[in-house]
Amino acid sequence: MTNTPSPMPQWNQATIVGVGLIGGSIGLAMRARGLAKSIVGVGRNEASLADALNVGAIDRAATDIADGVKEADLVIICSPVDKIVHLVQEVDRHCPSGTIVTDAGSTKEAITTALQDGLTNARFVGGHPLAGGAKAGPKHADACLYVGRTVVLTPTEQTDQAAAAAVEDLWTALGATVVCMQPHEHDEALAFTSHLPHWAAAAVAATTPEQWLPLTATGWYDTTRIAAGDAALWRQIFTSNRGHVLKALDKFEKVLAALREALETEDDAKLEKLLNDGKNRRDAVGN
Amino acid sequence: MTNTPSPMPQWNQATIVGVGLIGGSIGLAMRARGLAKSIVGVGRNEASLADALNVGAIDRAATDIADGVKEADLVIICSPVDKIVHLVQEVDRHCPSGTIVTDAGSTKEAITTALQDGLTNARFVGGHPLAGGAKAGPKHADACLYVGRTVVLTPTEQTDQAAAAAVEDLWTALGATVVCMQPHEHDEALAFTSHLPHWAAAAVAATTPEQWLPLTATGWYDTTRIAAGDAALWRQIFTSNRGHVLKALDKFEKVLAALREALETEDDAKLEKLLNDGKNRRDAVGN
Repeated sequence: MTNTPSPMPQWNQATIVGVGLIGGSIGLAMRARGLAKSIVGVGRNEASLADALNVGAIDRAATDIADGVKEADLVIICSPVDKIVHLVQEVDRHCPSGTIVTDAGSTKEAITTALQDGLTNARFVGGHPLAGGAKAGPKHADACLYVGRTVVLTPTEQTDQAAAAAVEDLWTALGATVVCMQPHEHDEALAFTSHLPHWAAAAVAATTPEQWLPLTATGWYDTTRIAAGDAALWRQIFTSNRGHVLKALDKFEKVLAALREALETEDDAKLEKLLNDGKNRRDAVGN
Repeated sequence: MTNTPSPMPQWNQATIVGVGLIGGSIGLAMRARGLAKSIVGVGRNEASLADALNVGAIDRAATDIADGVKEADLVIICSPVDKIVHLVQEVDRHCPSGTIVTDAGSTKEAITTALQDGLTNARFVGGHPLAGGAKAGPKHADACLYVGRTVVLTPTEQTDQAAAAAVEDLWTALGATVVCMQPHEHDEALAFTSHLPHWAAAAVAATTPEQWLPLTATGWYDTTRIAAGDAALWRQIFTSNRGHVLKALDKFEKVLAALREALETEDDAKLEKLLNDGKNRRDAVGN
């Protein structure tokens, strides 16, 4: 951590709805930097709330959303994507006027469109931290999870500019680099950089006959690692970004077809070139 | 390492042809366990040979294969797959009668078939250690690379049984678990457990538009990690196992088509079930 605690907390009460790895890490990171006078965690799972309290990610737990947000000037929704719209609307009904509400959802277009009009109290700014970890839950929360990571914000013409700037400041204070994009542009990009890898990992794992699993090694482990993610959560991510995922799959299938044709026709030069295309992209990103 | 050095080296002279990560690690592991009186490294790249000497993977370097194997009672070929048959034949011309020759090639059927008849001095046993690492070259050699890993040996009816037993003892002494399979069975299994993951990783990386590479995160990194491997080496692995790789691709494409159909038809239950199929296979392997 490079940030020292602020002399004056920026927020009076920050409420995190959904205190898993993502929400719990936001809580820990905000507390470590003294960004809020108090941090409230809202959730339905009492064991998770207890874990979040134990690790110090939140100061107070609430199972009732109205209770959790009634004094909040910042609310961060860290729930599965298909719950976000409903939760923001619920927050809007109970929060003070002007409360800034943001989220950490993996897709942005459907959420931003649904929340474009009709909010009374909340000023909503769509967000997506490109961070995660192999282990879920608040027990694995990490005050440094966002240091050096990219966070995408998706303010639109309808978004309150001061709210967007405040959310940008929040993530910057947590050590992240903020990138602003249009919601549809975010979803198009993430279809390639996040959803396609998960799709391919799940397909490789599902294709491997059980009898040969004992002969897997590093390559299989790495390529399929993210296929261990929660199937229901990922199903929601794919369906909430159906159009862009299908377009990414079109491109993926074209690349697979070109690779296959090169192998079938014994066009070694072509096959090597296509493998090098992948290597060059991989090398460009680095470890 | 659980093995202590043998009181009596089992081998008089072990020669490793190709001293990269795999060959260098065999050398380090054999020396650490006192398994050979001397270990000779053979290669064409003098810098690699110097590195192998520097890290202590070999006692002596030779650029001439005849010189390197003329007194060897064990030869291990750790070269790219398309060089192995030729190198074993070359070793056969210059090694003492009865010398045991094995390899570390990623595919086994073509090699074993080509070497079934016609060897004069060498007793060949096909082998494949399911181990590797992110960084290539003898500088990254590791005396413990094979501890806890699986090594497949592919002795056939034509293979000298004593030679197969000696190669099995060698890998066991290096800490590995040895599994014996028919060469075609090995190649069928590895098409799924090693070649398909590499194929998918390369395709995902090649599909990702360059403009979105800055938005990649953990999922993309993990899934595409192995796509950074040497394209020429992997092209050889795929072409040397063309038939089995194409059959694995048939199955992969069926799984992809089922996933796609579930997404297109909004069959959420089916999509979640398919994602769970992948998750279950992944969870069964662990880590």
